[in-house]
Amino acid sequence: MKRHFLWTFLSIFLIGIQANAQESLFGAQQITSPEIHDNSTVTFRFAAPNAKSVQITGDFLPAEKMDTPMGQMDGPGKADLVKDDKGIWSFTSTPLSPELYSYSFIVDGLKVTDPNNPFLIRDVASVTNVFLVGEGQAALYRVKDVPHGTVARRWYDSPGLGMDRRLTIYTPPGYEKSNEQFPVLYLLHGAGGDEEAWIALGRTAQIMDNLIAQGKAKPMIVVMPNGNVIQDAAPGEGNEGMYKPQFMVPKTMDGTYEANFMDIVKFVESNYQVKADKAHRAIAGLSMGGYHTMHISRYYPNMFDYIGLFSAAIMPREDATGKVYNDIDGTLKTQMDNGYKLYWIGIGKTDFLYDANKEYRAKLDSMGMPYKYVESEGGHIWRNWRVYLTQFVPQLFN
Amino acid sequence: MKRHFLWTFLSIFLIGIQANAQESLFGAQQITSPEIHDNSTVTFRFAAPNAKSVQITGDFLPAEKMDTPMGQMDGPGKADLVKDDKGIWSFTSTPLSPELYSYSFIVDGLKVTDPNNPFLIRDVASVTNVFLVGEGQAALYRVKDVPHGTVARRWYDSPGLGMDRRLTIYTPPGYEKSNEQFPVLYLLHGAGGDEEAWIALGRTAQIMDNLIAQGKAKPMIVVMPNGNVIQDAAPGEGNEGMYKPQFMVPKTMDGTYEANFMDIVKFVESNYQVKADKAHRAIAGLSMGGYHTMHISRYYPNMFDYIGLFSAAIMPREDATGKVYNDIDGTLKTQMDNGYKLYWIGIGKTDFLYDANKEYRAKLDSMGMPYKYVESEGGHIWRNWRVYLTQFVPQLFN
Repeated sequence: MKRHFLWTFLSIFLIGIQANAQESLFGAQQITSPEIHDNSTVTFRFAAPNAKSVQITGDFLPAEKMDTPMGQMDGPGKADLVKDDKGIWSFTSTPLSPELYSYSFIVDGLKVTDPNNPFLIRDVASVTNVFLVGEGQAALYRVKDVPHGTVARRWYDSPGLGMDRRLTIYTPPGYEKSNEQFPVLYLLHGAGGDEEAWIALGRTAQIMDNLIAQGKAKPMIVVMPNGNVIQDAAPGEGNEGMYKPQFMVPKTMDGTYEANFMDIVKFVESNYQVKADKAHRAIAGLSMGGYHTMHISRYYPNMFDYIGLFSAAIMPREDATGKVYNDIDGTLKTQMDNGYKLYWIGIGKTDFLYDANKEYRAKLDSMGMPYKYVESEGGHIWRNWRVYLTQFVPQLFN
Repeated sequence: MKRHFLWTFLSIFLIGIQANAQESLFGAQQITSPEIHDNSTVTFRFAAPNAKSVQITGDFLPAEKMDTPMGQMDGPGKADLVKDDKGIWSFTSTPLSPELYSYSFIVDGLKVTDPNNPFLIRDVASVTNVFLVGEGQAALYRVKDVPHGTVARRWYDSPGLGMDRRLTIYTPPGYEKSNEQFPVLYLLHGAGGDEEAWIALGRTAQIMDNLIAQGKAKPMIVVMPNGNVIQDAAPGEGNEGMYKPQFMVPKTMDGTYEANFMDIVKFVESNYQVKADKAHRAIAGLSMGGYHTMHISRYYPNMFDYIGLFSAAIMPREDATGKVYNDIDGTLKTQMDNGYKLYWIGIGKTDFLYDANKEYRAKLDSMGMPYKYVESEGGHIWRNWRVYLTQFVPQLFN
């Protein structure tokens, strides 16, 4: 082995030459974006000497009104980047409050991701860049120097749906070496999501690690199943291979999922160290997952002591099972009579499901069915669902 | 709950309006790309009515020569897309042999990802789109209807490095319910990679599931640690938060990793059902991971019966430990004298490390140290490392 090879190696790699089709070693652009400054402003940069205009669109910019069939609504804001003499476009934000934000660039009218930011999250069929600013609420979304739970992707047999299916499961720090039995939170995604949604967009592992380390949450198992009954797993992770995900997967809101939910509970309770009783089961979900949560918790009206509806898609649906949706009021009353510790409802003031939730609360009020209600700013967005999770989890299993 | 809400919901979501900042629900473009045809040609599409030129660059196109300090080398090929009257650009490939391929678009000189393909893989700091074509070798990379192992991200304490670190671990189908003890393959990534590399780019879980189901591999545990000693976890998954990964992380090739590798082995052997002996330990790695594999397996010269060097970065380095690299020939001889079942070396004919590997094989030849050698087409690319894994694993633990 000659010294020669060391220098060959270093010269190839440190100079940053694209060799042998392995261009991805080197990154497309040697600039920094986003750059998060100490004062919580953020500079975004994009190298495009020949572009005529570069804009940024993201959820941290002042919302812009957009026309929809429901009237004007808030859309993501936009801002212009300015080009310097080297062809690098840049934009610096105002100081941002602690959060996880997402953005894309618009180059001569074309929406593109930031080639200098390798952090992207897929939401249904779209991929956007993300970044974290500050501490505060965002501290819960960061990986801190605290004990970490384990996140596993595991397959289970669903006899009811006739297939093996994949779920994501968080077990708390120390679980593997513990003889203890733990409570379980079932955490359901929205339409178009899958078993990757809560762990990626929801930052569930980081939130759980941090809340447990702070003594604000009990050590618990969090089960994140796939709520699309015709899918065995997330796009790319299942038998269907790589395909473009769709928003409304058929049969996801026709009762089939709720009717077979006990396949998941049975799997968890026979494969993990859990306290298998009502006092140690919680269920929560966002949007379609909130709908599933509402129906599952009343269809099995003595299974869950903790129920969380996050921007729940409360709405009537066709019932393919002929049994799940056919006595909603009766089963809700049974659920109420059986008792529970917490029925938590959270929604944003500008959520398009706000009225549906208001109507649902009126129904609960008229029945005398107790619940806890939190109204936040903003709409039907992940920012709210992460916040709701951090508010819901500390109330569990106390 | 009025019927009204159902229709509101459907109208918003099915029409595909961007509402409430949740634009990511809907995807940027309602076209299909890539479209993989029955004859294994692939059509790529990109909507850009105002662009002057759209090209595609990818590893499935005929390689193009590029100048580097080492002379001309093969770079990824390029092809032009053609615009139709709706402003949709398209290109259809020749029939492609079964593989996982990657690509990007170049729009008016700017490299961008495909907004219609949500499947992206990060390699160091760059993100490119990927797709799978055909069966054959690619069948091993697909999720098939076979029993699936579990993939966990788990943290362990490394006393030698003074921190908690994260690893990815594959346990074979049925592991959790089994009382059996399993052999272990330690599978190491290259420079710039991390504990996500083999599971994402390497398709390790799919390869293992499929080889085990076909009876071509023994059920085994595969441990994919992080080889960058100053990192606790992959970018975005560790204490440093989200940052742009770099190719050469400091201290990754100075002996420190090798000197502390037993922290990982001890963790695995005290936390999993494993056969903790030489006959049931294998170690393999790509590029820098091949270098680590070479050094670890001779520095602990009686630990591993199976050794795999995939495009190994065989080269001298400074030794920060003062002990790991100071008697390479002596420890190699001890390793040889102690005996092993398989010392496997694979490299591509156009790999820039080809000569270094040739020189290393000459050394082994001169010592009389036996090895098995496979020379493939192509260079220093993931396609080869996936193939090497499928060739190496069937030879283990027989």
